[in-house]
Amino acid sequence: MQDAYPTRRGEPLEPFPRLDPVVHSSARFRWHGPLDECALSRYERDGFLWFEGFFGRERVEPFFDELAALARDSEAMNSDRVIADPANGELRSVFSMHTLSQRFSNLTRDPRILGMVQQLLGSDVYLHQSRINDKFGFQGGGFDWHSDFETWHSEDGMPRMRAVSASILLTENNEFNGPLMLIPGSHQFFVPCIDRTPEDNWKDSLKKQRLGVPEKSALRWLANRGGIQAPKGPPGSLLLFECNTLHASNMNMSPWSRANLFFVYNSVENQMQKPYCGLQPRPEFLATRNRASPLTMRDDAVEPAVPAPINGEAPYEPEMEHNVFTN
Amino acid sequence: MQDAYPTRRGEPLEPFPRLDPVVHSSARFRWHGPLDECALSRYERDGFLWFEGFFGRERVEPFFDELAALARDSEAMNSDRVIADPANGELRSVFSMHTLSQRFSNLTRDPRILGMVQQLLGSDVYLHQSRINDKFGFQGGGFDWHSDFETWHSEDGMPRMRAVSASILLTENNEFNGPLMLIPGSHQFFVPCIDRTPEDNWKDSLKKQRLGVPEKSALRWLANRGGIQAPKGPPGSLLLFECNTLHASNMNMSPWSRANLFFVYNSVENQMQKPYCGLQPRPEFLATRNRASPLTMRDDAVEPAVPAPINGEAPYEPEMEHNVFTN
Repeated sequence: MQDAYPTRRGEPLEPFPRLDPVVHSSARFRWHGPLDECALSRYERDGFLWFEGFFGRERVEPFFDELAALARDSEAMNSDRVIADPANGELRSVFSMHTLSQRFSNLTRDPRILGMVQQLLGSDVYLHQSRINDKFGFQGGGFDWHSDFETWHSEDGMPRMRAVSASILLTENNEFNGPLMLIPGSHQFFVPCIDRTPEDNWKDSLKKQRLGVPEKSALRWLANRGGIQAPKGPPGSLLLFECNTLHASNMNMSPWSRANLFFVYNSVENQMQKPYCGLQPRPEFLATRNRASPLTMRDDAVEPAVPAPINGEAPYEPEMEHNVFTN
Repeated sequence: MQDAYPTRRGEPLEPFPRLDPVVHSSARFRWHGPLDECALSRYERDGFLWFEGFFGRERVEPFFDELAALARDSEAMNSDRVIADPANGELRSVFSMHTLSQRFSNLTRDPRILGMVQQLLGSDVYLHQSRINDKFGFQGGGFDWHSDFETWHSEDGMPRMRAVSASILLTENNEFNGPLMLIPGSHQFFVPCIDRTPEDNWKDSLKKQRLGVPEKSALRWLANRGGIQAPKGPPGSLLLFECNTLHASNMNMSPWSRANLFFVYNSVENQMQKPYCGLQPRPEFLATRNRASPLTMRDDAVEPAVPAPINGEAPYEPEMEHNVFTN
């Protein structure tokens, strides 16, 4: 099996420029989307786009209720798709949220987001992975630097770089609650990692990034070249980032929890092959293998963006710790 | 022995308002210093003062040579006063720097700094502790939230809150290399900690803050009340902070090292008693016990602030990683 992006071969391999376009031009999609040429160029250069306050707060707040309901559901909590914090056992991530929640599924088909993603990937797309994350105040550990593509290629068999991740903030991200950090321009290079993938690596890797962390020399070179950025903003802000952009997060040392929705769009022309690490693929809830139908835009004319209040139900009141930030 | 600030008694004790002034007025010192009433009020309110670019870069760069010389000195490196990073054994802190380096000693007697400190403490002062810190790129671990006074009181026998710490940056502090974070206003309360102090706690505590970390509920209350701030700026910037201001630092996830000079001024009227934890005092290099003479201002007219270049010696060239930051 030919491997365009060799990694985890047990020996050091030099970083090299990516072999795939960043913006996958397509006559059908490129000229009919919400992104202008300036935004496309910025994505091409930096490997991400940040939209502060993309949605209003009321659009994302209902997801806390879903998170709270999941935390009370002992069957769900014992499932493999729920990841607990290694430090304290509390809910940290729930995977495959689009199959659990209609509201989540709707959001992934939002015409503005889906339109941008189709422009960037130049094709129809489907969801490779989705999850909801919660990083508690004073508790949430960080994640070391990594490229998602490096893992998806090695452990899931994603052949080429033609996927985009979307992260929607459920809480304010500030400099103290462990916001996502990115190295602009790092997506232009593939940085092979050294250590071979052990069996069932995913059970460990979802809690702590050990494998797939580039060598310090490569990170130093890329960070000195492109700097580091950590987008910050209110709930409802959106980050779109290229599958190969190096990112990390530090510990949450504030009392303010940091929660977000996360979903990965992959091109229908980039479906999973056998994992390049040679092991069994990861479970379906981490990486869609069964041919998924292309996503179609949700028609906002049919379904209101903000659901009308349900009779007798109190309006949503966020917890203090979810939105207080005094500086 | 009466203890105004009980802590580490093996049981939870409620936080309470401090019993000491923040600005210790004195007719002799208060009206003859560099700080105006506005700055004094800010210090009183926040518990710290930040001076971006207080010194020029050339004033602090020579300290790297001293740090490099120390790292090459195997006798010094094996001494108790040198603290290595638990993760990799590299030099992290050297204590009692004012007794090792004339340049360091001069800096602690800088007329502007000493003048401000005498204003704040309302008396003559001496050095309780001094050190140089280096937190390497990708390596330096963080320090959990704590009040220095809580440790100095418990382990050194500092009776009252009448000390000020000065931190002078040797490298740029930015949001990615683990800058000091402070909770403004936290100095107004004493937050007792629970766990009793074990023997020789300092051997462990200088590497990682375990004891003396307030309960999460107290931290949450104080951070929601005052927010969190992390001053950022170029080499030569100065932070003065009150001995009871809660502070912490996160891991350094950037390639850029974070180094600083740190020295603590204590009022001559606040000399060490027996440690309130009931154990033996920590070593002299961590806490001056032998009556030190009050510091006198260094006369800049006699000694130039920036030493003239020494004949035949190449001018100082900082390492790339000490000052490159692209954003």
